Amino acid sequence: MLSEFSLIDRFFARRASAQSSDAANGALGIGDDCALLAPRAGEMLAISTDMLVEGRHFFADVDPEALGHKALAVNLSDLAAMGAQPQAFTLAFSLPKADEAWLAAFSNGLFALAERHGCELIGGDTTGGPLNLCITVFGSVPPRAALRRDAAQPGDDIWISGTLGDARAGLGLQRAEWSADAADTATFRRALERPEPRVALGLALRGIAHAALDLSDGLAGDLLHILERSTMQATVDIDAIPRSAALRRLSPDIQQRCTLAGGDDYELCFTAPATARAAVEKAGREVNVPVTRIGTISALQTAADRPAIGWRDAAGAPLILTLQGFDHFHAD
Amino acid sequence: MLSEFSLIDRFFARRASAQSSDAANGALGIGDDCALLAPRAGEMLAISTDMLVEGRHFFADVDPEALGHKALAVNLSDLAAMGAQPQAFTLAFSLPKADEAWLAAFSNGLFALAERHGCELIGGDTTGGPLNLCITVFGSVPPRAALRRDAAQPGDDIWISGTLGDARAGLGLQRAEWSADAADTATFRRALERPEPRVALGLALRGIAHAALDLSDGLAGDLLHILERSTMQATVDIDAIPRSAALRRLSPDIQQRCTLAGGDDYELCFTAPATARAAVEKAGREVNVPVTRIGTISALQTAADRPAIGWRDAAGAPLILTLQGFDHFHAD
Repeated sequence: MLSEFSLIDRFFARRASAQSSDAANGALGIGDDCALLAPRAGEMLAISTDMLVEGRHFFADVDPEALGHKALAVNLSDLAAMGAQPQAFTLAFSLPKADEAWLAAFSNGLFALAERHGCELIGGDTTGGPLNLCITVFGSVPPRAALRRDAAQPGDDIWISGTLGDARAGLGLQRAEWSADAADTATFRRALERPEPRVALGLALRGIAHAALDLSDGLAGDLLHILERSTMQATVDIDAIPRSAALRRLSPDIQQRCTLAGGDDYELCFTAPATARAAVEKAGREVNVPVTRIGTISALQTAADRPAIGWRDAAGAPLILTLQGFDHFHAD
Repeated sequence: MLSEFSLIDRFFARRASAQSSDAANGALGIGDDCALLAPRAGEMLAISTDMLVEGRHFFADVDPEALGHKALAVNLSDLAAMGAQPQAFTLAFSLPKADEAWLAAFSNGLFALAERHGCELIGGDTTGGPLNLCITVFGSVPPRAALRRDAAQPGDDIWISGTLGDARAGLGLQRAEWSADAADTATFRRALERPEPRVALGLALRGIAHAALDLSDGLAGDLLHILERSTMQATVDIDAIPRSAALRRLSPDIQQRCTLAGGDDYELCFTAPATARAAVEKAGREVNVPVTRIGTISALQTAADRPAIGWRDAAGAPLILTLQGFDHFHAD
């Protein structure tokens, strides 16, 4: 078993310092009491932290290379949802034992994604204990360009990047809730294990989008966060919600469950004025990420109204979302 | 059992936002994808992260109020060692169950210390799992004033704040390695459970001290970190190492073990030029923290020399530090 210091040094600190000679985002990195970091001139640091626990966020037999990717990806996704440029991250983790092969694969997955985004490891902590990963990520954003949750405006379109539901479909396969052929299984598994944070799209949406967040817990719950913080309502056309060809091969009930209540998509949900439709589509084309308009924001109509989502089908008929899916609305 | 959101809201988010109306360190705090934070104008953010795991850093029956204090204190201590002014922190934790009494006490300990230092909770993450606490703390420091580990100079004095060894003495009591009377037991236990981060001293030492770190793993190991990063040697008078009256009532062997190889002291160890002795003592008086000179930094003499500590007794006779303590040096 490696000692704590040689373990950190071999898999993390050396690679971090090799990286910092290129990126030079951190003025002082691993090895002092603190790292020193500044946002770009005139900008602020966007900061997000996520903790991943074995048995809850991933299984004990997870591919460690995929885990390294995902642990950072879910944090970069928060920066993307803010329109922030990734700069640096810290990594704290507890491990039951120092397994060299596991650490090598984990750090490979982690640094491959970090290097693609110019995001430098500037500090951390390692300790013994049940497997737990805590990453805190730092990005730079001009204060007025930050894509906040409380900025949705009446008349805004609601947009989604990529497609929804594949990650939840992958989890359902692992749980034997449903089945799929080998090709679709690979698609779903990749969506679950290797989400791609929409960093470039978040940056491209600065000055175009009003409100944004990343979809980690499912559209129905996450869109409500924008509505609550913006004190707005939404109407969403469920038939417009973008789904992969693989997901469309599962039953309509499963598709709804995966797109609306499934988590782990890490796509962006954002609002933008109707006058910005061409600009949003241009931003999506420039970063090669499909963007799809799924609904509209509206103001609360009466003092008794609360932020809520009105679901509609393609014909405009209202639907009621239940735990099991949708029922067509019947006025009693 | 509380749901995750109401739990966070009751014990953490509401209190964080109540606090932010006073402190206003964070432009955007809990509730969005990221918090937004900037250092003071012309300064950098000093960032440190620590993970505390049940069974390793604390026992399952720990007083949760003391744990809340200590989890933040060990992070603030890293800011102190950098000469940084605390601004904000994030808290990620996993909990086996949402025990309201435990969370109330934990958050009380946490926020009492945070408020004393104007350090605002700006974000976090909570999840189910074995008890694990990960705090990342942010302070502001002018780049040139940062107290780095690599800045020790030949001829510098080596200084220690407060006294060393009481926390390790407290751990020894818990482990029944030794015993003490009720008053000394209370002293040791307080040192172990409620370390006081030397934030004000760190700020007062800006422009005076050269190198600094906080003592978390014991003087013998921690001072070596300064020597290695500064490529220096040190001579330390072990009889000069400050000890509490309570520790002096334990045997000399235990005193040595606790002061040199004990951890959890969270005192500052720093170097400063001999010309700054009056300034160091004035800084200590101003913040009401005793400071004690225990040794000297010197350059490596030959190419074969490595960073190391030469231990001396009050008479200047060399000693050899062993795992068990000191042997007087005998030239063979």
